[in-house]
Amino acid sequence: MARMTVVGLGSMGMGMAQSLVRAGHAVSGFDVAPGRAEALVAGGGVAATLAEAAAQSAVAVIVVLNAAQTETVLYGPEGIAPLMPKGGVIVSCATVSPEFARDMATRAEALGLMYLDAPISGGAARAASGELSIMASGSEAAFAAAKPALDAMAAVVHDLGREIGSGSAMKAVNQLLAGSQIALMGEALAFALSQGLDLRQVYSVITQSAGNSWMFQNRAPHVLDADYRPLSAVNIWLKDLGIVKDIATGAGVPVPLVDTALAQYRKAAEAGDGGLDDAAVTKVYTRAAGLKLPGEA
Amino acid sequence: MARMTVVGLGSMGMGMAQSLVRAGHAVSGFDVAPGRAEALVAGGGVAATLAEAAAQSAVAVIVVLNAAQTETVLYGPEGIAPLMPKGGVIVSCATVSPEFARDMATRAEALGLMYLDAPISGGAARAASGELSIMASGSEAAFAAAKPALDAMAAVVHDLGREIGSGSAMKAVNQLLAGSQIALMGEALAFALSQGLDLRQVYSVITQSAGNSWMFQNRAPHVLDADYRPLSAVNIWLKDLGIVKDIATGAGVPVPLVDTALAQYRKAAEAGDGGLDDAAVTKVYTRAAGLKLPGEA
Repeated sequence: MARMTVVGLGSMGMGMAQSLVRAGHAVSGFDVAPGRAEALVAGGGVAATLAEAAAQSAVAVIVVLNAAQTETVLYGPEGIAPLMPKGGVIVSCATVSPEFARDMATRAEALGLMYLDAPISGGAARAASGELSIMASGSEAAFAAAKPALDAMAAVVHDLGREIGSGSAMKAVNQLLAGSQIALMGEALAFALSQGLDLRQVYSVITQSAGNSWMFQNRAPHVLDADYRPLSAVNIWLKDLGIVKDIATGAGVPVPLVDTALAQYRKAAEAGDGGLDDAAVTKVYTRAAGLKLPGEA
Repeated sequence: MARMTVVGLGSMGMGMAQSLVRAGHAVSGFDVAPGRAEALVAGGGVAATLAEAAAQSAVAVIVVLNAAQTETVLYGPEGIAPLMPKGGVIVSCATVSPEFARDMATRAEALGLMYLDAPISGGAARAASGELSIMASGSEAAFAAAKPALDAMAAVVHDLGREIGSGSAMKAVNQLLAGSQIALMGEALAFALSQGLDLRQVYSVITQSAGNSWMFQNRAPHVLDADYRPLSAVNIWLKDLGIVKDIATGAGVPVPLVDTALAQYRKAAEAGDGGLDDAAVTKVYTRAAGLKLPGEA
């Protein structure tokens, strides 16, 4: 069993770190938020300073929010990459652009480290149960070095080849679809309300029809139950569809549906709903049309 | 077993008429295209003039392309509604607006007929096997009168209540989602191509991920195989998303994603691809970005 470091103990990272502990690894976890590292230790993690842990870990899993945090964790003033043993592997899980992933990997190589471009998918529950989907690319050696960690964290590892950036590009394709389809769900539910349809019946019919999507099936119940506790927040899509848009712009490929979905998330955030569950994008539509959602007076 | 008339023997109507024949009904079918009615007779249908068939049928199933054709078939110079026996039921299957459905029903009632607002979903294969989804609304009596036909044609009949228009509204919700998701599939595939991803691997990953939709899973293979034989054509979505847009405008509900999807189908049609399978909307994106799809030199 191996010594490992996990940086980022949020809703995904904590579950992933716990999955690594459960698989028998000696795991130290870190987060800027107080109490998280201690909670992992209470659940079987190894107490250590970040520098101690990095110096002893041949595997570091980075599960922070975005590119800027990933760069700080790896290469900032207290960055762990220079401290890690040569031949160690960085498993980078945040949703970032392929270009950023390539830059991170180049800098890791210069330090004698390997890099796995390894965005994750599946949500907090599957992170906790060690059943994530991981969309990964990198060298054979990086995959081999990361294997004990991947085995503990993921039900499926999609091997997207040897090019750093392909993992992040695949994740961006998924976010393009997923984020747009949540906004589209909101559009469809508001349209259905405007026609006097019963939303629970709409849910039943659509989930049996060609209009169905994974996101419609998963998120529409949040609207039906008026439960906007953030499993994944509106603000996450401002970030992730923003990344998709940046990649598309760089590649010269039009993404008009992403542009339109992004505009709806922006309106939701401007209305003060950025911290709510992403299904709250539905309110952008119903507010504009003067319609009442379940739970609204 | 009952005497029935089916008007419209296209890819959907022929299969539905054959399903009625298979269930033992005495079915006469009609189409403006030559040879179709004869083909149904060759398969067990009853030869008759339209006027004879209408006068003898307590059930008429109308499976034409749009609202204008529905109106002509029912109430035009050779319309069948005035010829049908009192107490007969019209089962109207075209995708139309709820308002149009209400108008058709009111005129049927004035003739002593019943009306079932009964749009269909499921495609030609399921029409042929008698396993369609039907989204229906109308009176209890209309449902009861139509039951022998519905039983023969559908695997699932969604009862959307007693209000004429609810069936058509539900179909519009499904088309809103389905049509937008096909365009979104095109956007995602072009984006993936621009990042150098292998489209077959993209298909494999997305169909196991949160970005999946019924339409992505069903239509992306047409792009991968460069097979644009029209199962459902680009032009169908110009019509159906046009209906969705009209309903939304009438109700004052914004549908920006539909507007954007509709614009992509319009570009596809303007490029001469209106008669191709709807998955050809992908070409709008790849042409704009200078990308090559499978099958393109």
